[in-house]
Amino acid sequence: MKERDTEPDFGKQGGLVPAVAQDASDGTVLMVAWMNREAWQRTLVTGKAHYYSRSRGKLWMKGETSGNIQEVQEVRLYCDADTVLLKVQQRGRAACHTGYRSCFFTKITTDGAVADGEKVFDPEDVYGE
Amino acid sequence: MKERDTEPDFGKQGGLVPAVAQDASDGTVLMVAWMNREAWQRTLVTGKAHYYSRSRGKLWMKGETSGNIQEVQEVRLYCDADTVLLKVQQRGRAACHTGYRSCFFTKITTDGAVADGEKVFDPEDVYGE
Repeated sequence: MKERDTEPDFGKQGGLVPAVAQDASDGTVLMVAWMNREAWQRTLVTGKAHYYSRSRGKLWMKGETSGNIQEVQEVRLYCDADTVLLKVQQRGRAACHTGYRSCFFTKITTDGAVADGEKVFDPEDVYGE
Repeated sequence: MKERDTEPDFGKQGGLVPAVAQDASDGTVLMVAWMNREAWQRTLVTGKAHYYSRSRGKLWMKGETSGNIQEVQEVRLYCDADTVLLKVQQRGRAACHTGYRSCFFTKITTDGAVADGEKVFDPEDVYGE
């Protein structure tokens, strides 16, 4: 019997895998970010979601600035181990830096793209200028 | 007022964006795959989820072999337009080629990785040898 992968396959995409964060309480897909091995390990050890920022080239903990951390309740791996799913409890109720609960607040309709989501906070209050 | 993006930003990752498929009925995250512009456009036009296979280097329609197509009920874009969320009705109830309902059937526990999901079909029956 094949052993199951216990960590993501970081070899496929330059040391990174996509990670989907889903609200553990109601299933809302909150965000998608990237993880390197360090982000993966810190997430498991601390129970708080950590990611790797490709634009800033560094590890970050979700909520380190806003306080809206993600407490990880469940960690899942993709069938081919190249993607991660985190079921989280989202502190502050909002994951998106825009103040919306989910980063997927833009809905594509036949009339174009519309904002369709709950706005929880004003980014200026949280991140300042 | 800034116009909202109405299509994904394909420029960041060599013409591809990740796409998350979520069951529209109960919120289960079924799979994550990649889309190029053609996959995006065919998804919108046909209402059936299309993706781009990086390993095979070609467009594919989910379910083209298994019959387990995904009827798209809602399309959402990420805050920075580089990721797609599809809310789908999953025909055949299973998205994963292994026969599990979700590709995220592997759960990471303190005892290691365990299969934790509903197996809907036997892959040999569906894909043959």
